Amino acid sequence: MAQVNEIEPTWNILGDSFPKQYEVPEEVEKKPKAENISKIKLKLQDIQDAHNRIKSDVVFTPVIEAKYVGKNFCNVFLKCENLQNTGSFKARGACNILSSMSPSDKSKGCTVSGGRNYLSAMTYYGFKQSVPINVIVPKDCPLVDKHTYKENFAIVKVHGNDLNDASLHALTYCDEIGSNYVHGSDRLDLIAGYGTLGLELLTQMDKMDAILCPVGSGGLVASLVLAVKSLKPNCLIYITVDEVWISRAMINILEREKMVVEGAAACPVAAVMAGKVPELRGKNIVCVLSGGNINSSRMSRVIDRGMAAEGRLVKFSVALPDVPGAMAKLLAKVTDNGADVKSFVPERAWMRRDIFTVSVNMLIETSDIHHAKDLEKKLLKDYPHSHFIML
Amino acid sequence: MAQVNEIEPTWNILGDSFPKQYEVPEEVEKKPKAENISKIKLKLQDIQDAHNRIKSDVVFTPVIEAKYVGKNFCNVFLKCENLQNTGSFKARGACNILSSMSPSDKSKGCTVSGGRNYLSAMTYYGFKQSVPINVIVPKDCPLVDKHTYKENFAIVKVHGNDLNDASLHALTYCDEIGSNYVHGSDRLDLIAGYGTLGLELLTQMDKMDAILCPVGSGGLVASLVLAVKSLKPNCLIYITVDEVWISRAMINILEREKMVVEGAAACPVAAVMAGKVPELRGKNIVCVLSGGNINSSRMSRVIDRGMAAEGRLVKFSVALPDVPGAMAKLLAKVTDNGADVKSFVPERAWMRRDIFTVSVNMLIETSDIHHAKDLEKKLLKDYPHSHFIML
Repeated sequence: MAQVNEIEPTWNILGDSFPKQYEVPEEVEKKPKAENISKIKLKLQDIQDAHNRIKSDVVFTPVIEAKYVGKNFCNVFLKCENLQNTGSFKARGACNILSSMSPSDKSKGCTVSGGRNYLSAMTYYGFKQSVPINVIVPKDCPLVDKHTYKENFAIVKVHGNDLNDASLHALTYCDEIGSNYVHGSDRLDLIAGYGTLGLELLTQMDKMDAILCPVGSGGLVASLVLAVKSLKPNCLIYITVDEVWISRAMINILEREKMVVEGAAACPVAAVMAGKVPELRGKNIVCVLSGGNINSSRMSRVIDRGMAAEGRLVKFSVALPDVPGAMAKLLAKVTDNGADVKSFVPERAWMRRDIFTVSVNMLIETSDIHHAKDLEKKLLKDYPHSHFIML
Repeated sequence: MAQVNEIEPTWNILGDSFPKQYEVPEEVEKKPKAENISKIKLKLQDIQDAHNRIKSDVVFTPVIEAKYVGKNFCNVFLKCENLQNTGSFKARGACNILSSMSPSDKSKGCTVSGGRNYLSAMTYYGFKQSVPINVIVPKDCPLVDKHTYKENFAIVKVHGNDLNDASLHALTYCDEIGSNYVHGSDRLDLIAGYGTLGLELLTQMDKMDAILCPVGSGGLVASLVLAVKSLKPNCLIYITVDEVWISRAMINILEREKMVVEGAAACPVAAVMAGKVPELRGKNIVCVLSGGNINSSRMSRVIDRGMAAEGRLVKFSVALPDVPGAMAKLLAKVTDNGADVKSFVPERAWMRRDIFTVSVNMLIETSDIHHAKDLEKKLLKDYPHSHFIML
């Protein structure tokens, strides 16, 4: 471990949040991080203690130099918390909470509610450390999540319509059964665990000019700032990155960097790709890939959305004479130009043209936006009544 | 770097191949690896020299302990060559070839043909080391591949119907223009490069009982054997792993280990999952994730195939009375039981029942095979004319 005290960093921490999945608490947006930290009195020593406590039970996650992200603009390094146990940095916090508990508290067990990554991490380490875990989830909790908690031998109880209901019930329930209620944010031991990510970074990177990380509930970014001793008054927070850029970032990380990340985790990369951080030109930047927990069917949708956003999935409709051979000719034209046909649906009823015309709706795959534009031009020449949709 | 000479390993190397994409040469199957190596006179020193030559230009890829693969059976570690430059171990070979060339040879440039991973690697390092690269590809080369080579500033020429045609033309072409022909296998400098993966492993793993790696053209496994000095007469080669297991391995690596791998690279993990290596119970196994180059639309298909194989995508048809409300009732039944409806297609014409009946074809997502079976049972009770398809 590097001597953290020797470090005199000059970095900025730039945080990004994913508005649809995470709500940034008011005070995180409006006040500097220092006040947020001081509220829970987190000290560097807490993070160092956490590191020593959990280091053999969490993954010392690798830092990979990005191959494509930021190319020709800056040097991007990826801190791969998606490869952490349970697929996110929450493992660090959960492990530290449970490892800090007294044997008698451990035997009473814990009652938890909250987001999926937090619950996965608590149930995983609960099982590892023989601490019984009760999970309270709302009615709309996806089956696959409940399945994960049960795989870790947690007791899963369903209560209420949303996370608030479930959390309130968890408070009552833990009183009833005499177990410990463990809140999923605002706990010193939780946030100290997160900060161990920063201590690892100090040993992994010779030179960092900036760290970009998702804000989430603010715990990670706050602890990271403290761990690298770089809290600056000009610390920047973006509250929005466009969703299209998030999809593009996710598909780029998947295709180019060969890793799976969830939406929030892709935000830092999205910020670089979208040109949101012009001040970082030529710098060494660490993007924290905070987690990789996205289910496969959502992943399929992200791939489609990302491909559409990059002009690699294109929809179009063409009006053709309804005569034998016309459709075959159209298909030949498309495939001869190197595009892949994903779907082909002729439509005869719901159209405004004469009855001797058929409209064909196609979904095609191209190699990039230039290829798509080129194909559009060629098809418009032969089929003037074509209509292309590119995102 | 560990002193390789001090190592006295007792490991077996178990290789798996992916029959549809790779052909295992006759001699690799029939003769011990030693003979294959001796043919090209590869020495440990060649690998050590290659390591010193390329170490600053390739990624020292991380070894990650698998979180789910092999659970309760053995300890699986993943050597992540999918995170290598250009997404595969071929980068090591290509980098070593080009770094070993004399300045005058470099200025003549190289002409290459072969598989995508090899060509990506050669064009990538060609650009990095200012060596002009000519790539000869057959007519059916995917656009996206040509795009990758061109991104690396290679000159791409299309010739012939298959890889054989292209390779023969490459030989003639390089004579014409006076450039070097660089074969994609059977070269000492190429295979010595591959072996550097083994030297890295020696520094990363305290204890390995076995290494599982895809065979491909034999170069990787041969060089790996030499690098870890563990060539044994009982070295095992599997020539087939069932395709369904490969899909299941790919989706597990994606969902659970958060990484993208191509089909061949998933074979070692597939072998563990399919129970092909019972002799490795309780052992420490390294699975080499040899590459991650799979395009996104194929990835979508792998996800679907893998989910179908795990009973998480289920197709079924149901015969219903063709009256208002019947379809809504069916949908409610399915969703109340926690399944997600992916597609819903009523069919009135192409069926053998009476005209007062409608047949509905559905594709649904379940949480696992048990959930799917449970749902089948419940639906059969209300709709005896249901037909389920699970892989």
